[in-house]
Amino acid sequence: MSGLAPAVERVVGELCKLPGIGRKTAQRLVFHLLRAPASEVAALAAALAELPEKVRACPTCFHLSEGGLCPVCSDPRRDPSVVCVVEEPANVLAVERTGAFHGLYHVLGGVLSPLKDVGPEDLRVNELVERVRSGKVAEVVLALGSNVEGEATAVYLSRLLKPLVPAVTRLAQGLPAGADLEFTDDLTLARAFENRRNY
Amino acid sequence: MSGLAPAVERVVGELCKLPGIGRKTAQRLVFHLLRAPASEVAALAAALAELPEKVRACPTCFHLSEGGLCPVCSDPRRDPSVVCVVEEPANVLAVERTGAFHGLYHVLGGVLSPLKDVGPEDLRVNELVERVRSGKVAEVVLALGSNVEGEATAVYLSRLLKPLVPAVTRLAQGLPAGADLEFTDDLTLARAFENRRNY
Repeated sequence: MSGLAPAVERVVGELCKLPGIGRKTAQRLVFHLLRAPASEVAALAAALAELPEKVRACPTCFHLSEGGLCPVCSDPRRDPSVVCVVEEPANVLAVERTGAFHGLYHVLGGVLSPLKDVGPEDLRVNELVERVRSGKVAEVVLALGSNVEGEATAVYLSRLLKPLVPAVTRLAQGLPAGADLEFTDDLTLARAFENRRNY
Repeated sequence: MSGLAPAVERVVGELCKLPGIGRKTAQRLVFHLLRAPASEVAALAAALAELPEKVRACPTCFHLSEGGLCPVCSDPRRDPSVVCVVEEPANVLAVERTGAFHGLYHVLGGVLSPLKDVGPEDLRVNELVERVRSGKVAEVVLALGSNVEGEATAVYLSRLLKPLVPAVTRLAQGLPAGADLEFTDDLTLARAFENRRNY
């Protein structure tokens, strides 16, 4: 027996379904919530309750949005001539955190994967082609992971987009920040050599 | 800017207030929730919403309860003649997990701490004395932490309870399971020697 009141047990059970949260962590969270002001718990519950109804995909870039365009697409300071293609919404946040990109995004919704039976028709590839065809895009940056599936998807998209857009680029590959040559894997080091640049 | 839809940002902000959950973890949880079935998110929101209204302290032992007696106090198989005094509800779960205790609990709601200005009147000490005085308690087990505040509280309670109850005991102190003598601190080892037992 767990010795927990049913209402507590229900929250623990629901929290346990979240990734990275086990039973002990869930209990710790619930004990925190029980000590917290009721308004804080109510705010969390309300924010969660409205999540599935309110959040939609942005009609332009398929990033998370509330009703209309997403915060990036609706920002007039962003440069609409550069489109950064990413796998999923979380990647948009990762790029935004760098502050290094000022264009718009296109969220594919996955990468090509024959093993998982994901083809171009399962991704927002047609929407990307349509968007690029509309004519105002000068550069497409393929910001996909440097793993097998990400690279295959990037190659596929680059072939598809090259006839349509002046520049199709991809993220640089090389040493990560703070890397030690001694502990860098061979493939990364080989790519860093291949892509070496002039000072 | 975070580039997140307001509804998403709200959940991230609320999740960040929980202990051990930073911004990145909160985002990961929200992205999981956005992919999860809406019913799962609704179940979590509903369970959280009812938490502050439904959960009360058990009128007998002050463990978490829903309305009446807590699951432990209302279990007729528990032995009411042994009362285990713990600091907080989380400790009840820890003891329950061991399966080694079959009596009832008394949740103090803290430990004595002059530095934090916590005196006996801030804890459920009077309620404990009343409960013991009612006459049916044969043993009180003081299951408080073996730190300065826990020990001070145990000494205080033992003096208070000894005239009222046949036995006042405390948890054994000694080597933890799997301990290596070489890496055991001096105080633990000294206590293990003091409290050595016959085979």
